[in-house]
Amino acid sequence: MSSSAGKLIGVGVGPGDPELMTLKAVHALGEADVIAYFAKAGNPSHARAIAARHLRQGVTELPLRYPVTTELPACSAGYRDAIRAFYDQAAADIAEHLTAGRSVAVICEGDPLFYGSYMHLHARLAARFAAEIVAGVTGMSGCWSAAGLPIAQGDDVFTVLPATLPEAELARRLADADAAVVMKVGRHLPKLRRALKTSGRLPRALYVERGTMADAKLVPFAAKLDDEAPYFAVVLVPGWEGRP
Amino acid sequence: MSSSAGKLIGVGVGPGDPELMTLKAVHALGEADVIAYFAKAGNPSHARAIAARHLRQGVTELPLRYPVTTELPACSAGYRDAIRAFYDQAAADIAEHLTAGRSVAVICEGDPLFYGSYMHLHARLAARFAAEIVAGVTGMSGCWSAAGLPIAQGDDVFTVLPATLPEAELARRLADADAAVVMKVGRHLPKLRRALKTSGRLPRALYVERGTMADAKLVPFAAKLDDEAPYFAVVLVPGWEGRP
Repeated sequence: MSSSAGKLIGVGVGPGDPELMTLKAVHALGEADVIAYFAKAGNPSHARAIAARHLRQGVTELPLRYPVTTELPACSAGYRDAIRAFYDQAAADIAEHLTAGRSVAVICEGDPLFYGSYMHLHARLAARFAAEIVAGVTGMSGCWSAAGLPIAQGDDVFTVLPATLPEAELARRLADADAAVVMKVGRHLPKLRRALKTSGRLPRALYVERGTMADAKLVPFAAKLDDEAPYFAVVLVPGWEGRP
Repeated sequence: MSSSAGKLIGVGVGPGDPELMTLKAVHALGEADVIAYFAKAGNPSHARAIAARHLRQGVTELPLRYPVTTELPACSAGYRDAIRAFYDQAAADIAEHLTAGRSVAVICEGDPLFYGSYMHLHARLAARFAAEIVAGVTGMSGCWSAAGLPIAQGDDVFTVLPATLPEAELARRLADADAAVVMKVGRHLPKLRRALKTSGRLPRALYVERGTMADAKLVPFAAKLDDEAPYFAVVLVPGWEGRP
């Protein structure tokens, strides 16, 4: 680690509302030499849109464009190889700036180390360069706050589950937790409905789309009759059953 | 709900570092007529200390002082009755301000609806008064960010567990999750050590005290040899085993 090298900063910009950025994130953006962010090829970056008003005029931007996202199955060797090569190249591009003494802020939706793509860069760079994390408000906090839904209290066991799990596994884990958030709902909606029924959690489950946006959709899961959902929709299952 | 009544706002002020407050929290504190916060009798409020620099000069403050905390067992009828009466009275005091048309910001460490005491007020008041939540960075995000420890990725199952659970239950749930945070470690340290061993999670567990403070203590759990820990110490068990 060279003392003249720049610092890597993983900056969480929160769940979507620019007002949910932290003071520390705003300051980090004002000071960084380079602002990096992930985006799908051909799409704008969500993180950049959240942070836009706090970017310095003329700051160097480094967009990191995913080569593949949903075109290949995530379990295929082709996907794994392509995504690994992409993260290697992104880390190399950032390392070049750091080595030249420039600080690089990688902005991320939500919290950088909680299911964030930044983790792939951190794992490749944090041993070689000084690295700092600016924690952010997670997407799930944004969702239950928008819903005004107390999610967990006291000795509740709280679990985050991907909807990609097999149905029996989803049902078992939902029944085993006091409170839960199910992510990546998308095409798994019908399976998730059955798992919520089996586990007895359907009556208290809330379906949330674009939770922290102006056009958020929040409905009791049981009232969501169609079986289509975007990939990023989440389902909240609140705990705190013995509320005093 | 009277249109002339004030608004209740649950304001998360984050895990400890005042810089981890959101812009929205700072603005809410600047606009509220009354600032309320919980504190142990005889102790300063952590939330107030975090938010101090953003309180308006001369704003009305409403400290809500817990009558009992650890003097009585939490499962005893005496504790339950005392704490219920306390929350009822706190809600009544806030309702008086709201009814008089004053907005009340209840400031909370972390995120208001994630294991926060604010939830007890929300449950009593949100049906009668307009209520808004300002999501905050959670204490656990503050901890894994301070540690630079990627906690969960991809399809990881992530779980939050209270160390109060029986040993076998702790071990089972630790083994069943890819990533976990164990809260309220305190006097449960020896039991938790055994559960981490049984579940095979000991080698990757990190012990964290005062995670987001200047005097934070972060050590591999296996290297923490003494068996004393403060109530608010946490243990982080990172997932993301198949990192590319």
